[in-house]
Amino acid sequence: MRRTVYVNGEYLSGEEAKVSVFDRGFLFSDGVYEVTSVIGGRLIDNDRHIARLHRSLNELNIDSPCSDADIIAIQKRLISDNKIDEGLVYLQVTRGSANRDFAYTENIKPTLVMFTQVKNISCDPAAEKGATIITLPDLRWGRCDIKTIGLLYPCMAKMEAKSRGADDAWLVDQDGFISEGTSNNSWILTKGGTLVTRQTTHDILAGVTRQAILDMASQEKLEIEQRPFTAAEAYEAQEAFFTSATALIMPVITIDGHNIAGGTPGPFARKFRKRYLELVAKHHPDN
Amino acid sequence: MRRTVYVNGEYLSGEEAKVSVFDRGFLFSDGVYEVTSVIGGRLIDNDRHIARLHRSLNELNIDSPCSDADIIAIQKRLISDNKIDEGLVYLQVTRGSANRDFAYTENIKPTLVMFTQVKNISCDPAAEKGATIITLPDLRWGRCDIKTIGLLYPCMAKMEAKSRGADDAWLVDQDGFISEGTSNNSWILTKGGTLVTRQTTHDILAGVTRQAILDMASQEKLEIEQRPFTAAEAYEAQEAFFTSATALIMPVITIDGHNIAGGTPGPFARKFRKRYLELVAKHHPDN
Repeated sequence: MRRTVYVNGEYLSGEEAKVSVFDRGFLFSDGVYEVTSVIGGRLIDNDRHIARLHRSLNELNIDSPCSDADIIAIQKRLISDNKIDEGLVYLQVTRGSANRDFAYTENIKPTLVMFTQVKNISCDPAAEKGATIITLPDLRWGRCDIKTIGLLYPCMAKMEAKSRGADDAWLVDQDGFISEGTSNNSWILTKGGTLVTRQTTHDILAGVTRQAILDMASQEKLEIEQRPFTAAEAYEAQEAFFTSATALIMPVITIDGHNIAGGTPGPFARKFRKRYLELVAKHHPDN
Repeated sequence: MRRTVYVNGEYLSGEEAKVSVFDRGFLFSDGVYEVTSVIGGRLIDNDRHIARLHRSLNELNIDSPCSDADIIAIQKRLISDNKIDEGLVYLQVTRGSANRDFAYTENIKPTLVMFTQVKNISCDPAAEKGATIITLPDLRWGRCDIKTIGLLYPCMAKMEAKSRGADDAWLVDQDGFISEGTSNNSWILTKGGTLVTRQTTHDILAGVTRQAILDMASQEKLEIEQRPFTAAEAYEAQEAFFTSATALIMPVITIDGHNIAGGTPGPFARKFRKRYLELVAKHHPDN
């Protein structure tokens, strides 16, 4: 794919876009990232993504590479240069380059890399079809609340799901509860009509779309429980779905082979997906 | 530091040595590494490092980037070009570059990066002084047997140790047992004279130097137990030490403020360090 990529102050072609082999992102996975969706050329929920970026950087004691205004200006230029109508802007900050040592010093200049990807967001065919899910043990580290580039296990779990003919995996913690998906938050709607998603601790990422859906559900006075749930509870749910910045609200149609909502995208997930897209259109008129 | 760095077939200066921002090592920590020590210009225990590299690559379904003979030829050229008498050769293989997606395809060409570092190995002043250790919770992922570049938590633990005035951290699992150090295997010699180090499971790395010391101890008919031990047991030990390719055998003089072996490097660790260096000199005459 031909595209312009931003690397530390420069706008480069994909082939020219490189970082030092001594970058601590490459040697130690010492970095964080954010993905903001683009619909109709506009950034979706970008303020929340930038706020979470700062939280992640703070947790790792990495300096901000530039001001928020600079980040937004780069995002907008990449959307424009790469003619992104629907897709995403990816942003990664690492601690920067230094002679290889587990310990780091304060004077390293952070690396900032940003690029775009084209992707169907609002009319994703996957959402019409619904997602098939398997559960796998959650073998990730203990600080999944920080959005780091240490993503090897999510990649492995995604590949394991695909090798078993499923679309994705939901990860199960040592106590038997679902943490979240490989790159998304997990939800169920119980037969009693309660919306359930795991509370934000060190175990899961505080998803931007997760929060938007919680806000929407709260405004509609739906019954919401933020608590862990098991795979067995999910098998029996009225509906199941997952949320992420680029998947938005994705209906789940099977979990470990158990049909959910009759094995088709459920009406609640479909309705909420539609409403979220309407909200996004209304609230992001000209960012 | 001026040096020649190997990147995918080319010998480059440190400033030129770069990888694509789309390298999955940079985006997903999807890669593995090995560090081989160099003493007197010779590679130490390199066969075991290369064997472990293959095991790590197999676990992640990454192809070997080249033959073992090629790897060794590159190692030797870097040692020669960079005039390394004592130090290390670092080697990293990642899955390679592709458009960013958690799922990967089979046709990606692996990335191979290798460079050297100068370091005192045989006469390390740190070994004369001994290391001070604190214990910290082991928050790493569930496959620490694979030598991946997902090293953020070890870096954080190392920095936490330094911020508390210690040299390094030993990580404690959820059951209260020590897993290993941030980048080394942990050992104690009990008051009864038994050498104890944790057995190799998914919880720890099967250290090359760990195995060399086990072989040496076995030849000397020492009593050895490969089992987990607690920090409390370590506080009461006759001696404690850690092993790694570049630290060799490093005496531990305090753990969480408790003096070990009177707060000085113990005679057993000193003797074994000396013997290992003699063995290395004898068995690696001309590699």
